[in-house]
Amino acid sequence: MSARDAVLHDIHRTESQSLFQRLIATRRLSSELALPLSDEDQVVQANDDASPTKWHLAHTTWFFEAFVLKAFLEGYRIFDERFEYCFNSYYESVGARQPRGKRGLLTRPSADEVRAYREHVDAALERLCERGLEPWAAELIELGINHEQQHQELLLTDILSLFASEPLKPAYARATPGVAVAEPAPPDWIAFDGGILAVGHDGEGFAYDNEGPRHDELVRPFRLANRCVTNSEWVAFIEDGGYSTPTLWLADGWATVKAQGWTAPLYWEEVDGGFMQMSLHGFGPLDSAAPVCHASYYEADAFARWAGYRLPTEFEWEAAAGTVPLKGRTLGAGHLRPMRAEAGSGLKQIYGDVWEWTGSAYLPYPGFKAAPGAVGEYNGKFMCNQFVLRGGSCATPEGHIRKTYRNFFYPHQRWQFMGLRLAGDA
Amino acid sequence: MSARDAVLHDIHRTESQSLFQRLIATRRLSSELALPLSDEDQVVQANDDASPTKWHLAHTTWFFEAFVLKAFLEGYRIFDERFEYCFNSYYESVGARQPRGKRGLLTRPSADEVRAYREHVDAALERLCERGLEPWAAELIELGINHEQQHQELLLTDILSLFASEPLKPAYARATPGVAVAEPAPPDWIAFDGGILAVGHDGEGFAYDNEGPRHDELVRPFRLANRCVTNSEWVAFIEDGGYSTPTLWLADGWATVKAQGWTAPLYWEEVDGGFMQMSLHGFGPLDSAAPVCHASYYEADAFARWAGYRLPTEFEWEAAAGTVPLKGRTLGAGHLRPMRAEAGSGLKQIYGDVWEWTGSAYLPYPGFKAAPGAVGEYNGKFMCNQFVLRGGSCATPEGHIRKTYRNFFYPHQRWQFMGLRLAGDA
Amino acid sequence: MSARDAVLHDIHRTESQSLFQRLIATRRLSSELALPLSDEDQVVQANDDASPTKWHLAHTTWFFEAFVLKAFLEGYRIFDERFEYCFNSYYESVGARQPRGKRGLLTRPSADEVRAYREHVDAALERLCERGLEPWAAELIELGINHEQQHQELLLTDILSLFASEPLKPAYARATPGVAVAEPAPPDWIAFDGGILAVGHDGEGFAYDNEGPRHDELVRPFRLANRCVTNSEWVAFIEDGGYSTPTLWLADGWATVKAQGWTAPLYWEEVDGGFMQMSLHGFGPLDSAAPVCHASYYEADAFARWAGYRLPTEFEWEAAAGTVPLKGRTLGAGHLRPMRAEAGSGLKQIYGDVWEWTGSAYLPYPGFKAAPGAVGEYNGKFMCNQFVLRGGSCATPEGHIRKTYRNFFYPHQRWQFMGLRLAGDA
Amino acid sequence: MSARDAVLHDIHRTESQSLFQRLIATRRLSSELALPLSDEDQVVQANDDASPTKWHLAHTTWFFEAFVLKAFLEGYRIFDERFEYCFNSYYESVGARQPRGKRGLLTRPSADEVRAYREHVDAALERLCERGLEPWAAELIELGINHEQQHQELLLTDILSLFASEPLKPAYARATPGVAVAEPAPPDWIAFDGGILAVGHDGEGFAYDNEGPRHDELVRPFRLANRCVTNSEWVAFIEDGGYSTPTLWLADGWATVKAQGWTAPLYWEEVDGGFMQMSLHGFGPLDSAAPVCHASYYEADAFARWAGYRLPTEFEWEAAAGTVPLKGRTLGAGHLRPMRAEAGSGLKQIYGDVWEWTGSAYLPYPGFKAAPGAVGEYNGKFMCNQFVLRGGSCATPEGHIRKTYRNFFYPHQRWQFMGLRLAGDA
Repeated sequence: MSARDAVLHDIHRTESQSLFQRLIATRRLSSELALPLSDEDQVVQANDDASPTKWHLAHTTWFFEAFVLKAFLEGYRIFDERFEYCFNSYYESVGARQPRGKRGLLTRPSADEVRAYREHVDAALERLCERGLEPWAAELIELGINHEQQHQELLLTDILSLFASEPLKPAYARATPGVAVAEPAPPDWIAFDGGILAVGHDGEGFAYDNEGPRHDELVRPFRLANRCVTNSEWVAFIEDGGYSTPTLWLADGWATVKAQGWTAPLYWEEVDGGFMQMSLHGFGPLDSAAPVCHASYYEADAFARWAGYRLPTEFEWEAAAGTVPLKGRTLGAGHLRPMRAEAGSGLKQIYGDVWEWTGSAYLPYPGFKAAPGAVGEYNGKFMCNQFVLRGGSCATPEGHIRKTYRNFFYPHQRWQFMGLRLAGDA
Repeated sequence: MSARDAVLHDIHRTESQSLFQRLIATRRLSSELALPLSDEDQVVQANDDASPTKWHLAHTTWFFEAFVLKAFLEGYRIFDERFEYCFNSYYESVGARQPRGKRGLLTRPSADEVRAYREHVDAALERLCERGLEPWAAELIELGINHEQQHQELLLTDILSLFASEPLKPAYARATPGVAVAEPAPPDWIAFDGGILAVGHDGEGFAYDNEGPRHDELVRPFRLANRCVTNSEWVAFIEDGGYSTPTLWLADGWATVKAQGWTAPLYWEEVDGGFMQMSLHGFGPLDSAAPVCHASYYEADAFARWAGYRLPTEFEWEAAAGTVPLKGRTLGAGHLRPMRAEAGSGLKQIYGDVWEWTGSAYLPYPGFKAAPGAVGEYNGKFMCNQFVLRGGSCATPEGHIRKTYRNFFYPHQRWQFMGLRLAGDA
Repeated sequence: MSARDAVLHDIHRTESQSLFQRLIATRRLSSELALPLSDEDQVVQANDDASPTKWHLAHTTWFFEAFVLKAFLEGYRIFDERFEYCFNSYYESVGARQPRGKRGLLTRPSADEVRAYREHVDAALERLCERGLEPWAAELIELGINHEQQHQELLLTDILSLFASEPLKPAYARATPGVAVAEPAPPDWIAFDGGILAVGHDGEGFAYDNEGPRHDELVRPFRLANRCVTNSEWVAFIEDGGYSTPTLWLADGWATVKAQGWTAPLYWEEVDGGFMQMSLHGFGPLDSAAPVCHASYYEADAFARWAGYRLPTEFEWEAAAGTVPLKGRTLGAGHLRPMRAEAGSGLKQIYGDVWEWTGSAYLPYPGFKAAPGAVGEYNGKFMCNQFVLRGGSCATPEGHIRKTYRNFFYPHQRWQFMGLRLAGDA
Repeated sequence: MSARDAVLHDIHRTESQSLFQRLIATRRLSSELALPLSDEDQVVQANDDASPTKWHLAHTTWFFEAFVLKAFLEGYRIFDERFEYCFNSYYESVGARQPRGKRGLLTRPSADEVRAYREHVDAALERLCERGLEPWAAELIELGINHEQQHQELLLTDILSLFASEPLKPAYARATPGVAVAEPAPPDWIAFDGGILAVGHDGEGFAYDNEGPRHDELVRPFRLANRCVTNSEWVAFIEDGGYSTPTLWLADGWATVKAQGWTAPLYWEEVDGGFMQMSLHGFGPLDSAAPVCHASYYEADAFARWAGYRLPTEFEWEAAAGTVPLKGRTLGAGHLRPMRAEAGSGLKQIYGDVWEWTGSAYLPYPGFKAAPGAVGEYNGKFMCNQFVLRGGSCATPEGHIRKTYRNFFYPHQRWQFMGLRLAGDA
């Protein structure tokens, strides 16, 4: 090894070790999130959108095995060849897989075996990182970390979905006391100049392929509410006949309201004239000042129309987010539900609490190219029929969110921690 | 207490204790059947027809709590009021319940809690039996024992259904060696005289309400195959184009064949030109001489037409069954799958191995009256759209089957241990 | 030709001509039934159970072309080869066909072309009959006449189904004045001895294959209401909560009530606290003394349970029918709806008015063999999941009904002229 | 009347008369389009997306009655109050209506009555126009004309849909001879500079509300194929496995391909190794040089990915369209199917032939406000889940298309005259 090679090798090892620290912390967090759950809780699939906890734990592990260890760790022994079929999610290039709606049938492999699978893969990842990583391997590990963080949030939203569908309505965790603040005043409106703005990821640090290429967008002057829409504002919408007034709704939204019998956000239940809500802390009264959560795009859009406003575009949101620090009540804050905004007039709740629906369809940025190979299926093939959400939620792992992050869901979906912030023209 | 009362009391106690012995043996067997299963295996629902193991364990327990303990054991403390909603099956008179297709969402109560529930109820039943039982209480306990036995068979068929739908195809139990016998010769045909025959339960010993009233039926002379149709005979049907010849099928059967893509009985898979079969012993080659199993009524009817015969009526079957002892390979034989008939020419496999489809629609016997109260929903309300099966199977608990027993399923269903025996006119 | 041959030939010609008279009368009636309908009315399919008028007119014609003319009329020119695909109903042996649910897409061939098709086939049938008919040809023509009569009734029930689903609720015909009679008293009960009775067709005159073989049935003593259940009796059932009391219903029936939202028979509508009914005379008030019509088996069974009675078996019905003349208000009576029973105490409404649900599953009689060839698909393949109805209705053509006639429908179906008569044990 | 008022009155009358000429021409064209169709053809609904011809004829008439005559013609007598229920399409503000999927049940009112309805409304419109029109009335008539033109195109696409689903595959019209041109060379690529471009309607002449407000868009340099993708190019895509390569497809597109069994565009059929196509001229061989037609967005997107290009955005398309005259083979050209591009290198087929899918989601332009009242439901409520198509087709009426016109359909829909043009980055 030449001196230059030795230096490079050391740099790679150091980078690998720092990456490895984050990797191991991420892997550990997944396991910890499963701790309050019995093996029974971990195997059942609440509905077609949700996956079992055990499946999340195994799929994220398979991701490292399939895309990192098989490619980069010489002599790696596959834990069980049959797991690829069980735990591949949607990678057509990789091969056949357990149908999405039947992930809940996998009582085997057992939760114990999945835990052993995790240990086996973690140990192999440690060996790989110790040797120093080629850049492409490092990039894939970075992708794997971010991938697992997404599944951490899904694990929580899916468990909530399961627990909400059980007659005993169990709690995932005990509630932490909220920050005591006054009932919020009407939102302040913050004005932003438009202009030609550069949006999208700029190449430093990790980002998903769908956040680039960075490019210019023409944004018109606009204004944003300084906080998210609250539960009490949503109750006013309900009481004003929001769910029974077709002219407030997109046609597809109204069809969904009627077909599904929606009369309130997901997990709300009217009890004795007031609203209760199922959350990860179980079934309890609605916090009227907290952001409304588990509302679909259809509902967010109808609410905005009722209120005389609109949803922001994803670029308006990104422009506004550029004015505040990357800080908010995400998973590390330990609340597991969106919390009321602090008093005061600045722009609040940009990060954390609830994902914010934007009025932007999820489409490729100009010049977008999916990554080569199977990981190219990560984002690009979903760029149709969905809307962009921004800003992360109370269930988004620390360090996972950023200004350019584009989350996306179908307009009828509401089981994520989803809410909204109003926007208007300047 | 007068001398007469004391004597009666002793009789009741003695009867109660004997009933209690059977009760406790039944309750224990259910728990034992669950032993090879993890808690994960016990919570998942394979499909809308099947129920989770844990649900079977809890529902049979709730049956005793709801219909026996609440009514007859003074001071009985209900284990958990919420379990009635969770574990009521279909008793409209009792109240609301977890929808049938969503029994698999019940990760709570946990398997541990269900085991505790069983112990709580068993202890209370013991207290009740010790005091001596009123006749109606004894009858309900007897019904509860038989009810639980039915669920023992369902537990096994439902677990097979679950395991067959898992990619790892686990085995519930290791196979016991079969009795070594020669490949069976073509069936012998046994002739029976007809006449006016008394059928149905005669009032001695337990029977379900649907087995009575005992009454006369006019039966024409007929003949029966001396054994069930075998897998190798079924393979001949397949190879002769049985599943692609519409004129062999009832119209509803043919529509089902096309809609479901049936090409063989349930759990069969063609591998390299031969057939494999999923069973409680896992995935393995077909035993060609064993009775065909997991065939629907539609398939049984089409096979019989192809073979130039027909299915027996339930009364023909009952007449024939009256000529042989109540003996067969039921659950106690320990095979967990239907076994090939022994050599020889007599009437075989009447009891055990597979339930035999009859050509009789499941309808009330003349003069049938359902029992008063909720237990009256046990059988009567299903007397429509189903066909009668007779004789029990390899999964029917010992002592549960009898000559007059009427099982019933929809003509498209095949997840039970179901087969057939051919009949013809004399 | 020998003298004997000449005599036989004359006999055949005479028989053929008499058959031909009936054939031509039947063919003419079909055309006449379509007269009140526009071509538009004749092309649309109201739902999957119903067929368009034009399809009925063409299908019955195709039946003669496919089964009679092609086989027996030398030199017959097929009208249009493509019509076989269009107008074959369900004969798998004949070949592919327009899917049942898509018969309403056939705007071509036009109604005019179908009328020309009818003329072409009628002329050919005339030529065939003039030559004298072989017995098998005569039998098939007889079958074709009866087949067309069935479709005459279906034409009327299907048009009612279409008109009832149109917002303008058109009338097919003006109402004829009813026979003025007093509001009926409670039904009389007529007792019948049981015994071993010969049932089924005895071989004289035409009958469908499903009416035989004639055989003995053991019938227990029973009694029958002397008339059908009336609309006012049904209103009492509704007012007593019949449609909201699950314990009155078969399980499948109750599931249907809930899934379909049934609260009354088909075509009933509650208006200002009273009931209106759509009929072939348009939308009008319910005739309280007329037989209830358009009730499913599920409803008939629930009503009988509520009333403390049961439905008769098909053999009880046949035994009773043997005591009255073959006479009733069928299609020739010109009412197009069931009429109230005449005053008096004898057995009434056995024939005509409404088909009467029996509690008998539609199954083959002992020794039943379907006819060879495609016409063997006429009845036999439907012997599953349906119930027998007896006696004909106000829409049954003259001469089409008889004591042994077995009609059959699924227990959820109600668009035919269906009602019920109560029965009880002696 | 003052002199000024008299002058204004004359101007209004002149404008009204010119508007009336166009109105009457439009009304007449609708009737003429129905001439080749029997009343039977006009009543049937081919599928849930399509409407019957008669319904189109009546609905466009109702539009004038409901929004113009009732509001502006004093003393107007409504033709039939019940028609509002029958022929309202989706105006929630107006009230209840015949469900969209059940428009084909309306055999009544008859085609004759609908023709009389048209005459009644036309006569009333003439009276109204003779009096001179208020501006708002004139605007609504203009909207009604454009509305009816849209339904003229739908009438044709819906009749094709119906005729393609009939076994006799009738032709709507005889084919006109195509312009004889050579097989097209590969497309030329035409480069466009980007920049900040004003897009959307500029306020002169009629436009739908969804075409405005006119506003700036930032468009990057791009290039466009000078003609549409042809059938022969599509055949190459098929032969290269386009319909069986999941990585070419959006996830939702691939799911649709599998669920629907798509292997070619709608109305294509493989016969003896070549492709035939159903068109308004009946069933015939594919014109290999003609633009591919009846492809969904999913297919267009997959084709573009396969070809190494992408779809243009709607603003790229609009920028390019600004460089050519508003001319093309629309309905007046009389072809009723897309025709091959003329030889030569300029930008061709921008208008007419086929609607061109863009990669732009159908969303409101910045500052969009729906019109007040029921006509505000015309466009805005559909701004979700659909994609924009541009340029009109061979079935678009003369004068109906323009540079800023935004048509929109769901990405799975393909029964319109839809194709595509490739785009690329500069």
